[in-house]
Amino acid sequence: MKRVYLDHNATTPLRREARAAMVAAMDQVGNPSSVHAEGRAAKAIVEQARAQVAQTVGCEPAEVVFTSGATEAARVLQVPVPEHHVYVDPTAHDALLAHAGGVGAGATTATLAMGLANSETGVISAMPQRAEGKWCSGAQRADWLLLDITQAAGRIPVDFAASKADFAILSAHKLGGPKGVGALVVRQGLDITALAPGGGQEMGRRSGTENIIGIAGFGAAAAAAARDIASGRWEEVKELRKILENTLAASAKTTIFVGKDSDRLPNTSCFAMPGWKGESQVIQMDLAGFAISAGSACSSGKVRESHVLRAMGYDEETASSAIRVSLGLETTAEDVQRFAETWLAKERNFRARMA
Amino acid sequence: MKRVYLDHNATTPLRREARAAMVAAMDQVGNPSSVHAEGRAAKAIVEQARAQVAQTVGCEPAEVVFTSGATEAARVLQVPVPEHHVYVDPTAHDALLAHAGGVGAGATTATLAMGLANSETGVISAMPQRAEGKWCSGAQRADWLLLDITQAAGRIPVDFAASKADFAILSAHKLGGPKGVGALVVRQGLDITALAPGGGQEMGRRSGTENIIGIAGFGAAAAAAARDIASGRWEEVKELRKILENTLAASAKTTIFVGKDSDRLPNTSCFAMPGWKGESQVIQMDLAGFAISAGSACSSGKVRESHVLRAMGYDEETASSAIRVSLGLETTAEDVQRFAETWLAKERNFRARMA
Repeated sequence: MKRVYLDHNATTPLRREARAAMVAAMDQVGNPSSVHAEGRAAKAIVEQARAQVAQTVGCEPAEVVFTSGATEAARVLQVPVPEHHVYVDPTAHDALLAHAGGVGAGATTATLAMGLANSETGVISAMPQRAEGKWCSGAQRADWLLLDITQAAGRIPVDFAASKADFAILSAHKLGGPKGVGALVVRQGLDITALAPGGGQEMGRRSGTENIIGIAGFGAAAAAAARDIASGRWEEVKELRKILENTLAASAKTTIFVGKDSDRLPNTSCFAMPGWKGESQVIQMDLAGFAISAGSACSSGKVRESHVLRAMGYDEETASSAIRVSLGLETTAEDVQRFAETWLAKERNFRARMA
Repeated sequence: MKRVYLDHNATTPLRREARAAMVAAMDQVGNPSSVHAEGRAAKAIVEQARAQVAQTVGCEPAEVVFTSGATEAARVLQVPVPEHHVYVDPTAHDALLAHAGGVGAGATTATLAMGLANSETGVISAMPQRAEGKWCSGAQRADWLLLDITQAAGRIPVDFAASKADFAILSAHKLGGPKGVGALVVRQGLDITALAPGGGQEMGRRSGTENIIGIAGFGAAAAAAARDIASGRWEEVKELRKILENTLAASAKTTIFVGKDSDRLPNTSCFAMPGWKGESQVIQMDLAGFAISAGSACSSGKVRESHVLRAMGYDEETASSAIRVSLGLETTAEDVQRFAETWLAKERNFRARMA
């Protein structure tokens, strides 16, 4: 029986457009920093991809800095300025939370970092308000706003310019590009400390020879992703998720669906069956042929409850009993049906053992 | 007429073994951090490549930390410890020089960073001596040694363990892997500050979803490169360089060959014709169908004299009149012959104009 991959928020298959662009880029020998014809041809690949990514996220090409992924891009938060505070939304990804902190109440400047859509629950964040020249979120006041659009880009429309955010970070592999490439978007006019010092690539903002093949794939995937959003393909995915959640809820009536009444990404379902450990569900479903996750992929090796669900106010038992099922563009009604039947059978076994 | 690419120190074509490994990895959907079968399969690709790279550079697989390239790997020098000094060899690459400095004479600990082989001249460095628990280079005393093996790995045998160095950095694309992937080698037992904090990949030493496709290509290229060194293919390249240099020297008798009497990489020839600007030579040769460089690729966009040649004691006129011709495994005797004829004709024109 063919396996069913339902972990698209961890990573999603390479789009055929990305694959074609990458294979084509393999023939390009030059280093984009070289002035000769081979170098200029390599540079042209990077610039084409930059325009494609910019178009998809609603920014100017000159605002895109290519990186090795969203995690590297998040390093822009490592502001080497004393008296600066970084506020991070407690439901954000570890890549952002790693940079939380600073001098706190005594800070004279601050950055607020948050995910636009949550990787575990799919919940889309309310944008912070801008008042008196500051970003306001609860009691927090920040000068700059960083949006992690990793899970949103390529699934829902993202408009960096309209958001008025100062920074955005994203990763190619969540929208059908390759792993190991991403971007930092920096609002025009803002200066940043180089993410990596050295040869001065990316206009001095990120040194290191460019990942030509990966960047080519990123650009092609971004363009294809924008096309798929425009053509409404995610509406079909949203319909499959609805079928999934209704099927589970009809039989396993105590299932807790996280964020079900919030605005969510169309593909993500996070649900908990308190007492039945998420890790255990992942392993049982894996053996049955289904790839899902408990928490985000990065932390899934570590058996612990989801910090996201805890931050949302769920108790430890519920947070440790949640799984994430994330659908992709190739997910079929049959995939969803098979998943639901298998999970429900295991859930009945679990309850029988507990009885 | 087909173009002749003689800028292999800037970047060298993707090896067919790397291409095959990359195309195969494109079918692998999983995230290596995921615990399910797809995740484990992706992880296996990373671990196979880690073993291949380790084998080629003479270290243990557990000592290899995959990065987005040598420039990112060099960030290990950003030691967040006061009282620490970073000595950088003045002929080193900008990616190392960017980290030079610290508290100087008052430092209580120090790291010495140097290239094992120079990117512009191919000159192989004398290893610093180890005495009284310190690395000694001139008057400098350092606790740790970082070797930039980017230009050496895959061209001459490199043995990290035998070198007793503490760190090494390298880049896949100089040995026939893809651009945008590399490694930091960390001697077992040494702790480092994470190059990027976040999800905790690479045993906490470098967070961010792994560049599976690129890493697969790096591993395959490293294995192929080791095989080519063992089979003596670089001896043939060295012979072609000898023909090149002898042909040039016979007609253009005032040509200065840099480092000709030193141990050099087998593929690199750096020479100067004082008064004839390197940038001008690069452009003229590009128009005639040849890709070469003046200085390293990273800085070649900037018109300035080579800091390497200046550090070697050459005057400004000579340093700004040098070009680098770097051969690859596919370079033919005809390529070299055509290059020499074309360059000599242009050199005669130059002298005629000057006369």
